[in-house]
Amino acid sequence: MDRAEVLTEALPYIRKYIGKIIVIKYGGNAMLSQDLKESIVSDIVLLNMVGVKVVLVHGGGPDINDLLSKLGKESKFIDGLRYTDDEDIEYIQMVLCGKTNKELVSLIGKTGAKAVGISGLDATLATAVKMPKYGNVGDITDVDPTLIKDLLLKNYIPVVSSIAFSEQGSLNINADLFAAKLSIVLEADHFMLLTDVKGVLRDKNNEDSLIKEIKVSQVPELIEDGIISGGMIPKVDCCTLAARNGVKQTTIQKGTLKHSILIELLSDEGSGTMFY
Amino acid sequence: MDRAEVLTEALPYIRKYIGKIIVIKYGGNAMLSQDLKESIVSDIVLLNMVGVKVVLVHGGGPDINDLLSKLGKESKFIDGLRYTDDEDIEYIQMVLCGKTNKELVSLIGKTGAKAVGISGLDATLATAVKMPKYGNVGDITDVDPTLIKDLLLKNYIPVVSSIAFSEQGSLNINADLFAAKLSIVLEADHFMLLTDVKGVLRDKNNEDSLIKEIKVSQVPELIEDGIISGGMIPKVDCCTLAARNGVKQTTIQKGTLKHSILIELLSDEGSGTMFY
Amino acid sequence: MDRAEVLTEALPYIRKYIGKIIVIKYGGNAMLSQDLKESIVSDIVLLNMVGVKVVLVHGGGPDINDLLSKLGKESKFIDGLRYTDDEDIEYIQMVLCGKTNKELVSLIGKTGAKAVGISGLDATLATAVKMPKYGNVGDITDVDPTLIKDLLLKNYIPVVSSIAFSEQGSLNINADLFAAKLSIVLEADHFMLLTDVKGVLRDKNNEDSLIKEIKVSQVPELIEDGIISGGMIPKVDCCTLAARNGVKQTTIQKGTLKHSILIELLSDEGSGTMFY
Amino acid sequence: MDRAEVLTEALPYIRKYIGKIIVIKYGGNAMLSQDLKESIVSDIVLLNMVGVKVVLVHGGGPDINDLLSKLGKESKFIDGLRYTDDEDIEYIQMVLCGKTNKELVSLIGKTGAKAVGISGLDATLATAVKMPKYGNVGDITDVDPTLIKDLLLKNYIPVVSSIAFSEQGSLNINADLFAAKLSIVLEADHFMLLTDVKGVLRDKNNEDSLIKEIKVSQVPELIEDGIISGGMIPKVDCCTLAARNGVKQTTIQKGTLKHSILIELLSDEGSGTMFY
Amino acid sequence: MDRAEVLTEALPYIRKYIGKIIVIKYGGNAMLSQDLKESIVSDIVLLNMVGVKVVLVHGGGPDINDLLSKLGKESKFIDGLRYTDDEDIEYIQMVLCGKTNKELVSLIGKTGAKAVGISGLDATLATAVKMPKYGNVGDITDVDPTLIKDLLLKNYIPVVSSIAFSEQGSLNINADLFAAKLSIVLEADHFMLLTDVKGVLRDKNNEDSLIKEIKVSQVPELIEDGIISGGMIPKVDCCTLAARNGVKQTTIQKGTLKHSILIELLSDEGSGTMFY
Amino acid sequence: MDRAEVLTEALPYIRKYIGKIIVIKYGGNAMLSQDLKESIVSDIVLLNMVGVKVVLVHGGGPDINDLLSKLGKESKFIDGLRYTDDEDIEYIQMVLCGKTNKELVSLIGKTGAKAVGISGLDATLATAVKMPKYGNVGDITDVDPTLIKDLLLKNYIPVVSSIAFSEQGSLNINADLFAAKLSIVLEADHFMLLTDVKGVLRDKNNEDSLIKEIKVSQVPELIEDGIISGGMIPKVDCCTLAARNGVKQTTIQKGTLKHSILIELLSDEGSGTMFY
Repeated sequence: MDRAEVLTEALPYIRKYIGKIIVIKYGGNAMLSQDLKESIVSDIVLLNMVGVKVVLVHGGGPDINDLLSKLGKESKFIDGLRYTDDEDIEYIQMVLCGKTNKELVSLIGKTGAKAVGISGLDATLATAVKMPKYGNVGDITDVDPTLIKDLLLKNYIPVVSSIAFSEQGSLNINADLFAAKLSIVLEADHFMLLTDVKGVLRDKNNEDSLIKEIKVSQVPELIEDGIISGGMIPKVDCCTLAARNGVKQTTIQKGTLKHSILIELLSDEGSGTMFY
Repeated sequence: MDRAEVLTEALPYIRKYIGKIIVIKYGGNAMLSQDLKESIVSDIVLLNMVGVKVVLVHGGGPDINDLLSKLGKESKFIDGLRYTDDEDIEYIQMVLCGKTNKELVSLIGKTGAKAVGISGLDATLATAVKMPKYGNVGDITDVDPTLIKDLLLKNYIPVVSSIAFSEQGSLNINADLFAAKLSIVLEADHFMLLTDVKGVLRDKNNEDSLIKEIKVSQVPELIEDGIISGGMIPKVDCCTLAARNGVKQTTIQKGTLKHSILIELLSDEGSGTMFY
Repeated sequence: MDRAEVLTEALPYIRKYIGKIIVIKYGGNAMLSQDLKESIVSDIVLLNMVGVKVVLVHGGGPDINDLLSKLGKESKFIDGLRYTDDEDIEYIQMVLCGKTNKELVSLIGKTGAKAVGISGLDATLATAVKMPKYGNVGDITDVDPTLIKDLLLKNYIPVVSSIAFSEQGSLNINADLFAAKLSIVLEADHFMLLTDVKGVLRDKNNEDSLIKEIKVSQVPELIEDGIISGGMIPKVDCCTLAARNGVKQTTIQKGTLKHSILIELLSDEGSGTMFY
Repeated sequence: MDRAEVLTEALPYIRKYIGKIIVIKYGGNAMLSQDLKESIVSDIVLLNMVGVKVVLVHGGGPDINDLLSKLGKESKFIDGLRYTDDEDIEYIQMVLCGKTNKELVSLIGKTGAKAVGISGLDATLATAVKMPKYGNVGDITDVDPTLIKDLLLKNYIPVVSSIAFSEQGSLNINADLFAAKLSIVLEADHFMLLTDVKGVLRDKNNEDSLIKEIKVSQVPELIEDGIISGGMIPKVDCCTLAARNGVKQTTIQKGTLKHSILIELLSDEGSGTMFY
Repeated sequence: MDRAEVLTEALPYIRKYIGKIIVIKYGGNAMLSQDLKESIVSDIVLLNMVGVKVVLVHGGGPDINDLLSKLGKESKFIDGLRYTDDEDIEYIQMVLCGKTNKELVSLIGKTGAKAVGISGLDATLATAVKMPKYGNVGDITDVDPTLIKDLLLKNYIPVVSSIAFSEQGSLNINADLFAAKLSIVLEADHFMLLTDVKGVLRDKNNEDSLIKEIKVSQVPELIEDGIISGGMIPKVDCCTLAARNGVKQTTIQKGTLKHSILIELLSDEGSGTMFY
Repeated sequence: MDRAEVLTEALPYIRKYIGKIIVIKYGGNAMLSQDLKESIVSDIVLLNMVGVKVVLVHGGGPDINDLLSKLGKESKFIDGLRYTDDEDIEYIQMVLCGKTNKELVSLIGKTGAKAVGISGLDATLATAVKMPKYGNVGDITDVDPTLIKDLLLKNYIPVVSSIAFSEQGSLNINADLFAAKLSIVLEADHFMLLTDVKGVLRDKNNEDSLIKEIKVSQVPELIEDGIISGGMIPKVDCCTLAARNGVKQTTIQKGTLKHSILIELLSDEGSGTMFY
């Protein structure tokens, strides 16, 4: 495929996305390699350059456990999920807002683009109620996208930590769900969930068995058939939520594939599973 | 070279040209094939889509002689140049403004983009004085770019016929020169002269001998050396004029090469000779 | 009547029309005399000066037959109407867009005002379907007034040739109908059809028998009574169409009467037949 | 002269004055007749209608003496000029701001136009220092035209009483001079001083001896020759002041001639003496 | 109560009123003392400073009778109300618009703030019909708040005399009612009626018996019980009218209490009777 | 002093500060008590409410040492100053950006106002070069206030951590100096440095010996005399820097005095030492 063809194919997509909002959830293994981190930052900066409005929501990755273990904190589990006590939330917030977030902001800054690192606390962007069973973990009750809209209007790239505000103190929020809800209130054109796999596979061991498009109405059947299973279920739930609430394109795709963001957005082929 | 590389290379160029003005002079053999015409229109429409402000100036091509011969008009020559009598200018204007121009406008219209076909007469865009030796042929004395700026602001693609206004009646204008002067008053970022050859060649019979960049101060020497000669001289003069008067990039390139406009603008390589 | 009275009467009308859109259809005998052409252009320029938004739609007049006969084209008739073959439409378009239109544009340009000559092809202003019985003659299916509104906003005088766009190529359109439909989508305040007669006359041989106002509901009866007959019928139909679709004032008036446009608009008396 | 000629002549003047500021000083005998008052109001309203920005400055006329005599106030004279004591200024202000001003405002209101009656006190438009010799009479030291500009922007007709603000209380101001100074700070296009005579006459008893144009440099000689004399001298001084400070047209003309304002502004002839 | 407490309490009120419209009716004994006049002007100017939009409506006070008695006019009474003959209205208008109004305007001007003195005649702000029984006294039929809104937008303080326009001439209007109606069409946030008493008192002789809040539905009962009686009834009617038509806060309060306006607006306590 | 007096005194100050920028440096003992923290937040929110544009810059307080000691990090000192190794800067950034900053943001959020927590990394607000002697400590070379201006324009309260961007990684910055430099590029009206003492005291043991105003030219002498000494010297240097570079008011004042911000800004008395 030659250069002119790539461009001829890409330009209508660029036009389509100029001025539109894309919410990207970044996490998992893609956070481990500096090289991948830079490839993702590069894609985001290029999109921002031509006027696409990108919002980056991130999880914490291994840094949280690193700090907790250095501090000698032992983990307590409820139903297989980590219990977040009062010290934990303080440390999680410090890592997310003070380390992971600012690292991404600095990486973007190095390219000359302008990122602003925020969390659900800033301008009370996200409000949640505590789910006491799991400690300081929250269920989002309200997202006010005004701050993000204001930042996008001025061409900043918002980088968002998944911590929410509550009258009783900060609460930890599942980052996939935070990103999905943000994409809804922002009336995003695209919600992109970067994971460690290529998308939903008919055969888990064969990436060629990728299902390119799934109607949200087919999801229950695919779960029953065991094709969507395990950790993929909550991720698909996030996509279903976004798709049902007006987000035009929602995809699960492989974050560890270099430039998968550009290819997903700017070519006919796509690179993961799309829900509609 | 893979898709992601092409895009990563192209996006900064797209950003560079968004909102900028590109004046393209289209004429010669590239007007003969419907296929080439559509390739050029496609490039222009794609650029317009992503926010580049393209102005298309065209010559008349073979249609003028067609009509004159059908009407049994005999040509009279002065110094080897055609003399344009009072009937001629009427017919030339009819072909340029009523046929060639509107054909390009309609081709653009078919893609869904919006072109507006005008001439130097409209809003007295270009005023000229008669060069009586050659009949109704004009030397441009004033270009008022307001109409074109107004059209570009509203995202139209202006398609411009090279006829100028004078108190004594319409005057025919050399289209290369018209385009060069337009690019100056529009403070265009790029003036692109599409011709039948790849650019200035060291060896006329070898396209690989293309000179990629020429300083305008080197032009006299290159003429003396016979490297720039014949019909290439006035074309280079137009480029020199534009380059000397603030047009940032001015290139001569092959109009019969498909998608040469996109490649020139959106890749590191370029496709013709650049004057600076 | 003294100067102060004329002004005192005219100023409220001027106020009424400032910022309002007037569509004027110009054609017929009024196109034959240079003197009349200049009087019409003068009226239009004066109205434009004080802020009235004038759109001028023109037919082709005798120039079309001139060219066709010079080219030795013979006319073929269907039901008494000329059949427009593929060559014809090319020549008609050349005359309308390349000669008649640009002549009016240049005349306006000489006064210092700014006209822009366009057709239904430009920005696909008018789309039509072919009426195959008559060859390349079209029935308008869509008028998109955006280009004209954009031009009026910047104070240009749009001069419009009655050619429409179709996927199969340009189509010739009846200029009266083109103007009427344009006045509707532009939500014009006044549609003025300049003809060779003073308006609808009770007695065809007596201009004093002019009917000053006709309700559109009375038209069928007036046709039955033979008062509206022959070539006047389609003209009245255009006025009825405009009046029924929201154009506040629609008049048929004599184009060969000097300054009839100013008198119609800026005095209590009016100069033709008004439909309401 | 027929209607079309009057209009053709007037429209370019209307265009010239649209959006421009005209300051009219109204006083003298023209205030005595209800008929003349209505003719002046009619001219002003018509000009306002088409977008001319008219400011009307008025003197007090006979109403002041009426009230003072009813109240049994005796007049005291200094150098032939009336001395304005503390009671006088209160009554003068009441008549100017509470009677003459509001009468003009109401007359304009009756036509449907919108006038706002103000004085130099409002928004401290005019500040003056007391000239103690004559009592509460002021010499203007500062004019702040902001309020008038704000009113003109919203299409109101400001009607201005010639009272100025001082820390010591209201001061009476010569209305001709007030109007001249206002026209300067407003950067008016025209300052029109309506008087009881047609302008400067070579022969006081013959209106046909009107001098149509006077260079301000000729004024001293005309005074020396006795052609400008008596009460005309201060009026000419006001015009000279305005002309020297950038007001493009300043005229003295007869206020008792019906519609002299319209004729002065909208025809080639003019109706009084112009200073330049 | 210390300074910080006063400020902490006041700032939220300031925020609440920034950009909001307050209509204040000023009259009665508060007009007699220069000291009180200055205290009221000071409060209004301070509010205007921080962006509250204050409209001041005034009555005439003793100045009207002063002038009428100086002029030897005898009063005629109908049903205990003064009959306003043709001379009376002229004098009343002169006092209100030419004296009381301009005095307040000048007092405000002295502080550096900008007031504009108008009446119902200006821009035909208030139109009324004559109530012939009482002579030139009017019943307001229409209030057009455009002029006042335009003035407020530019930060002027409108000072309004209670005279209305009618085709038959100026009419005198009850200033309380004028102010109430103005507050309704202006969609004011607060209508404040300054009177000689603290508000509605349970015991007329005891200011401590002030009723702080009254529901408009309770008014009839309070009248029946004689608690609201005499001259207080029409004042309460004005408040009821305003409260029923969307004015959020309407209060009757003591104008002779220094700085009662500031305390009413900027503290928790309030200073009079509020209707809701 | 009664309520009306406090308000009458405060309102002109409020007007003076509406729309103006105040940079407040918050740190030291004032960070230890929850009560004081809330008092400071309350003052800031009240100022923000009435339209004052407040920027809050904070230091780290005791939280940094807390974390470092929990992690068993030993401190190394150079010239009596702490050396910041690569782990230290990571932890300092986590505490500043992830704990202290977000705590203030949440406290403001609880009042309903909107704060946005940022650092010098966000939008590369502050760029610094490393001072290797002290490890990852920076000397600010550039401050780009665009992000803060954008946030202030939309009425957010920026809360800023004193970390700067460098190509080699984050650098720790002295918060007093960061705040001073920020106030300069923001062209702030007031720079307020909250400390543990009342200001510059003639006698360190006597708060009544406060020097209310110091000319920056007097500073060297006061240092020589030992009146400005120890930790006060760098703080005074920051004030001198701000005052010399156009910040209109710069004060050192006691952060542990409740509501000292409001009293400083909104009363005649002031509460600390002002440099000018």
